[in-house]
Amino acid sequence: MAKAIGYAAYDPKKPLAPFNFERREVGANDVEIEILFCGVCHSDLHQVRDEWGNSTFPMVPGHEIVGRVTKVGSAVTKFKAGDLAGVGCLVDSCRSCPDCEDSLEQYCNHAVFTYNSPDKQMPGQSTYGGYSNLIVVEQRFVLKVSEKLDLAAVAPLLCAGITTYSPLRNWKVGPGQKVGVVGLGGLGHMAVKFAHAFGAHTVLFTTSASKVEDAKRLGADEIVISKNPEEMAKHAQSFDFILNTVAAPHDLDQYTALLKRDGTHCLVGVPDSPHPTPNIGNLIFKRRSLAGSLIGGLRETQEMLDFCAEHNITSDIELIKIQDIENAFARMLKSDVKYRFVIDLASLKQAA
Amino acid sequence: MAKAIGYAAYDPKKPLAPFNFERREVGANDVEIEILFCGVCHSDLHQVRDEWGNSTFPMVPGHEIVGRVTKVGSAVTKFKAGDLAGVGCLVDSCRSCPDCEDSLEQYCNHAVFTYNSPDKQMPGQSTYGGYSNLIVVEQRFVLKVSEKLDLAAVAPLLCAGITTYSPLRNWKVGPGQKVGVVGLGGLGHMAVKFAHAFGAHTVLFTTSASKVEDAKRLGADEIVISKNPEEMAKHAQSFDFILNTVAAPHDLDQYTALLKRDGTHCLVGVPDSPHPTPNIGNLIFKRRSLAGSLIGGLRETQEMLDFCAEHNITSDIELIKIQDIENAFARMLKSDVKYRFVIDLASLKQAA
Repeated sequence: MAKAIGYAAYDPKKPLAPFNFERREVGANDVEIEILFCGVCHSDLHQVRDEWGNSTFPMVPGHEIVGRVTKVGSAVTKFKAGDLAGVGCLVDSCRSCPDCEDSLEQYCNHAVFTYNSPDKQMPGQSTYGGYSNLIVVEQRFVLKVSEKLDLAAVAPLLCAGITTYSPLRNWKVGPGQKVGVVGLGGLGHMAVKFAHAFGAHTVLFTTSASKVEDAKRLGADEIVISKNPEEMAKHAQSFDFILNTVAAPHDLDQYTALLKRDGTHCLVGVPDSPHPTPNIGNLIFKRRSLAGSLIGGLRETQEMLDFCAEHNITSDIELIKIQDIENAFARMLKSDVKYRFVIDLASLKQAA
Repeated sequence: MAKAIGYAAYDPKKPLAPFNFERREVGANDVEIEILFCGVCHSDLHQVRDEWGNSTFPMVPGHEIVGRVTKVGSAVTKFKAGDLAGVGCLVDSCRSCPDCEDSLEQYCNHAVFTYNSPDKQMPGQSTYGGYSNLIVVEQRFVLKVSEKLDLAAVAPLLCAGITTYSPLRNWKVGPGQKVGVVGLGGLGHMAVKFAHAFGAHTVLFTTSASKVEDAKRLGADEIVISKNPEEMAKHAQSFDFILNTVAAPHDLDQYTALLKRDGTHCLVGVPDSPHPTPNIGNLIFKRRSLAGSLIGGLRETQEMLDFCAEHNITSDIELIKIQDIENAFARMLKSDVKYRFVIDLASLKQAA
């Protein structure tokens, strides 16, 4: 067993604080990674505060993990010490269901999430995530990371990146299509970059006029202020696909109505309280779909990282010290981040 | 112009009564049809009673029309006098939009419905439907009907048939798939017949245990009483596709949760008041879709009629006289019909 240090939530109402724990022995198929950077995802805050009602404490959050391999098991072929590596939202799954067979492990009923899941290999303990200096993960769930990109800015690709890449690929977004992205946050800014990179005419919907210039810089061809009904009406029945990254409850119909016949309005955020009930007529009268999508599987996550290396795509980030995590949470709640906080784990040494 | 007689609603609160009107002159591309049978659709009643708020009076309902061609225009090549013919929900559309180009005229923004639509060829008048002895329709919107089938039982194929056939085809239902049908009414009983004919393992969901035997006879492999949570739970995550024919507001999640990853829950009924808001997590955690579908286009309606002739599929009907229409409406409201009322228009001569 290796001694690890991280920051943990001990209680939904208290600030995160240093936490000493152990990572499992490196097994034959395991990869041990020194964590260098970890992105801060909205779901970290939801779970730290037990807003989904399924939290276990102490909790070490973090599932946008990049670092360098320090040790590999005897059966590991994909990695060697010194390689860059990444770990996303998943560290295990059943391996035998249709979802696992299709490398869509995120949909496996027995998926083990990177933190706040029962740890099958450390019975009685939860999985601990990337707000820490070290992690041990089986090679199947470890991603290869290119040396070409800014490593800190790669971290958010492991959740915000794949969560937007996967639906854009699944619904075959590409040239000749008009694609909408709702919301310009951690997920939305990646969706704009990907939709643009895939060659689609990319339209960002935002409530905030202040985001127009930034959205253009990120790759949006058009920006629509969604509070303006006239502006929205101009785009009626014109979209092939809309990726909605906003989890807060809102009127879904205003976007569904902008789809062409056979278009899909795909949601990637689970709202804390329900959206207003959608108008089913909006689906029936143009054979539209309202769909959902969850992160991505391991094969597709690797494909996404390779695509990013080839096309020089990373997240726009603000690098923070682990000691500043509560301030980052507070700013994230106000959407005051462009566009993802990433923790520099070197700062952990300060605390140790 | 040809003199026609029908039954019309003069007012949302009064019973239908005889109505004399004129059909347009037979133009070069027109087909004149003596109507022999017309199905009674739930939407007839909604519109007669102005429950959708868009009714114009007098209104001659009816869009499940079959009869015999009596006259054709000089440019008509598809039909000759004496042929059987059918007319469904549509009698015109713009002909040039992407929907019309794909023969999905039902999604055209300028579709002209068979009744209660402004009649482009009789300015100032509404289109008048099949509760009448005669109709004149352009050949593009007239279907060929086989002599092999019981003609009265063919009539409901023009709406109930195509409304269920089209989504089952669009979502590629076939052998090796498990397909659900929600509700055993006019639409549901056709959906069971088609899903069975397409080779899918067909499961009917009904609230009524009394329908079990009949559902088996119609082609269902299994019947699930949807009020029984244990029975429902046994089918969790097992369906490829669910076609929901129930328009009354109900819990959609109980069906969505029965879909496999990537499954689609397709609705074909517009509820008068909204369904309870669906749980978006049910979509996200298995990449499922909630979709809608509307009747079918002309090409697909012909394909469906040909398929029915080949496979000896018709609707189960109760034949009525036009004078009994109010009683039929009342029984339809109580779901007391197996499974579609069809008017024998010969009865009109009695009234005339």
